[in-house]
Amino acid sequence: MVAVTIWNEFRHEREEQAAEVAYPDGIHEAIADALTDEYDVQTATLDDPHHGLTADVLEDTDVLLWWGHEAHDEVSDVVADRVHRHVLEGMGFIPLHSSHYAKPFTRLMGTSCSLQYREDGGTERLWVVDPGHPIADGLNEVIELPETEMYGEPFDVPEPDRQVFISWFEGGEVFRSGCCYRRGNGRIFYFRPGHETYPIYNNAAVRRVLRNAVEWASPTEGAPRTFGERS
Amino acid sequence: MVAVTIWNEFRHEREEQAAEVAYPDGIHEAIADALTDEYDVQTATLDDPHHGLTADVLEDTDVLLWWGHEAHDEVSDVVADRVHRHVLEGMGFIPLHSSHYAKPFTRLMGTSCSLQYREDGGTERLWVVDPGHPIADGLNEVIELPETEMYGEPFDVPEPDRQVFISWFEGGEVFRSGCCYRRGNGRIFYFRPGHETYPIYNNAAVRRVLRNAVEWASPTEGAPRTFGERS
Amino acid sequence: MVAVTIWNEFRHEREEQAAEVAYPDGIHEAIADALTDEYDVQTATLDDPHHGLTADVLEDTDVLLWWGHEAHDEVSDVVADRVHRHVLEGMGFIPLHSSHYAKPFTRLMGTSCSLQYREDGGTERLWVVDPGHPIADGLNEVIELPETEMYGEPFDVPEPDRQVFISWFEGGEVFRSGCCYRRGNGRIFYFRPGHETYPIYNNAAVRRVLRNAVEWASPTEGAPRTFGERS
Amino acid sequence: MVAVTIWNEFRHEREEQAAEVAYPDGIHEAIADALTDEYDVQTATLDDPHHGLTADVLEDTDVLLWWGHEAHDEVSDVVADRVHRHVLEGMGFIPLHSSHYAKPFTRLMGTSCSLQYREDGGTERLWVVDPGHPIADGLNEVIELPETEMYGEPFDVPEPDRQVFISWFEGGEVFRSGCCYRRGNGRIFYFRPGHETYPIYNNAAVRRVLRNAVEWASPTEGAPRTFGERS
Repeated sequence: MVAVTIWNEFRHEREEQAAEVAYPDGIHEAIADALTDEYDVQTATLDDPHHGLTADVLEDTDVLLWWGHEAHDEVSDVVADRVHRHVLEGMGFIPLHSSHYAKPFTRLMGTSCSLQYREDGGTERLWVVDPGHPIADGLNEVIELPETEMYGEPFDVPEPDRQVFISWFEGGEVFRSGCCYRRGNGRIFYFRPGHETYPIYNNAAVRRVLRNAVEWASPTEGAPRTFGERS
Repeated sequence: MVAVTIWNEFRHEREEQAAEVAYPDGIHEAIADALTDEYDVQTATLDDPHHGLTADVLEDTDVLLWWGHEAHDEVSDVVADRVHRHVLEGMGFIPLHSSHYAKPFTRLMGTSCSLQYREDGGTERLWVVDPGHPIADGLNEVIELPETEMYGEPFDVPEPDRQVFISWFEGGEVFRSGCCYRRGNGRIFYFRPGHETYPIYNNAAVRRVLRNAVEWASPTEGAPRTFGERS
Repeated sequence: MVAVTIWNEFRHEREEQAAEVAYPDGIHEAIADALTDEYDVQTATLDDPHHGLTADVLEDTDVLLWWGHEAHDEVSDVVADRVHRHVLEGMGFIPLHSSHYAKPFTRLMGTSCSLQYREDGGTERLWVVDPGHPIADGLNEVIELPETEMYGEPFDVPEPDRQVFISWFEGGEVFRSGCCYRRGNGRIFYFRPGHETYPIYNNAAVRRVLRNAVEWASPTEGAPRTFGERS
Repeated sequence: MVAVTIWNEFRHEREEQAAEVAYPDGIHEAIADALTDEYDVQTATLDDPHHGLTADVLEDTDVLLWWGHEAHDEVSDVVADRVHRHVLEGMGFIPLHSSHYAKPFTRLMGTSCSLQYREDGGTERLWVVDPGHPIADGLNEVIELPETEMYGEPFDVPEPDRQVFISWFEGGEVFRSGCCYRRGNGRIFYFRPGHETYPIYNNAAVRRVLRNAVEWASPTEGAPRTFGERS
């Protein structure tokens, strides 16, 4: 059974009423609820010792989901480096929404990961542009989310290996909302939807995407990665 | 000076009043007008002998622009093969709008090149998603076109080498509107805007894109392409 | 259980003694032997009616392996088109060795698929350059084949989505020997090793690659691919 | 005229006799000699104040070449970050040989950039696998270097946007020796050849590659890169 760790900053939900209403047990628990029937799920948060991401936890993690927003800088470099290294060694990594600025993601991308945004509560439509991709399994041609924060291009990331979703926003913008990457042995899927006060992780199609992404990002056996001097 | 050939089906403009109004001299002449100051431009049309694309013409062409719509099937296989071969040998190729179904393009892509469409005259906004690309030189962050035919995803093409534009449509769809490919030695840029009755090739930003694309698609010297038995 | 069809030209083995010695039952049976424990395998050959690739056979095929060499032109356009269409709709496709010139492969690639070659029986070493790829599962860092036909660059194919193997040849050349592509919904893996008189498909590591590639190329459920006019 | 800055660690040439013999004025001067006729060239070294890479110097640099080996760690994070930022804003970047481990390169790639090596003085042959690429302009199909340090796969970098060269080594290995990337607005070309004691930067074909790479990596005008809150 694939071992999943869901990491959440878990600040908004304890500090802002709207966030607490949307996610009374925290975003991590809403995501856990979407994954727990199929995967072996544990959670970790910023304020846990070592942010809950000790060497042992990561050693036992096949796929790590990540939600952060206001406290990216409080993630220690030690933990960010550890996550980074585990991804290169094969751990799947799924940064969500505002985690485009999470330390492990920007280190893996090597770019600023900047974008445009507007908190206007408008409609988002995520179009499947790669209908043969396993992350699109079982979806319709479009996912409609009635109330979202807008993210707009340019999105300063490397050209994705595969683009699964492109978002349309009511206010007139577009965004590359589902981006697949490989770095080292690790599979990375950036997925845009999610917000601390709009309960997007309760949406059935979004939850299906999360399950598909975990499946896709799980490590495979591979061949040896031997580096250094060769005799 | 880069030698440009603009190929146009040139049927709508002689058969439909709205198209004649939009492009009284044909779409090819409107495009020629955008390019003629900087490039050595000639035109060719479907009803010319050999569709105007003889071996000599292609031999002297650095970059070929292509507009077709209702008569893709009337392009002879001989000419389609000739264009295909010249692209692999280094000629730039810029299929426009409904030319996603043009024979040379589908042969180069190897896919169906199908898409969704709706002729509703709605607004299109082309977002620059790769602001460092030479095809984006001198543009603003978005090109707005007030009246267009919608093209929607999925667009059945290979994952582009680089995505320069993504379109937003008023009716709720998105489309990968500017796609760069290399096939053999040839550079290919599919550019979505254009329609027989909306005078889109008179738009200043669209004309800038066409000029940039010609510059980008021009052949470079390269190294030998030697195939076959090796001693 | 994944349904595999192995297509073989099956001429060399009936016409040349060296080929008959290497593959007494035909190349297709040697490949079938590598796959039959894990997959539901059937075979088809050029001289079967409709080359053994009727609409029904392809409808029931998840992954098609293909070996052709001297008779590419005898494959009918009807069958080549049918294979092409099935790949775009999701069937996996694994062209082997000299099948770089097979009609379905060149149609899918859109390039000449030309290369250099020399039949010198020298050593080939296939290096795993993407050790995290599922096609590399369970391999060592290099596969050594003692007697092979050399294939050399340039190989006129589109830039692969992922490069799994690069070959080193004793005579001084290199070749991109394992290339992954997606076209439409279909996964394509070109794999270089194989020859009619060197019994390469009996090599254990090569057989492991074939099994891995079938697994990787199997279709996934995906999302709808709807094309055409949109209301 | 393109403004080029050549950065060299410049330690080996002052510390080891063999390096001093190969490059009496330093590697940077040998490279400068290859570029100075066509570009506006300046040099900088590790032991200059701020490693010679002040904000002003980088502001005036279109393309930065980089050679480091034994003292990657002595490059300050401030300077590494500055270089990184300038690349994302459009400066071309050409890390050479052992600079696969240079701080700005590993930050841009997001991977370990590890590889295998053996200092055996064997022959290397760089095959042009993308003969239509401008970095291959004017080359033959292969560059032969008689005495080199071997670099072998796996090379832990993201899949290159374009692969221009693949190396064959006498000892039996292969390596992706010329890798093109775009990060932000910047063009990056990793080029393997070079060593402190083998005078590889005096080779005419290698010098041609360096000139071509500078041309290719030069910034273009582009479109605005606007990030942040959108009204």
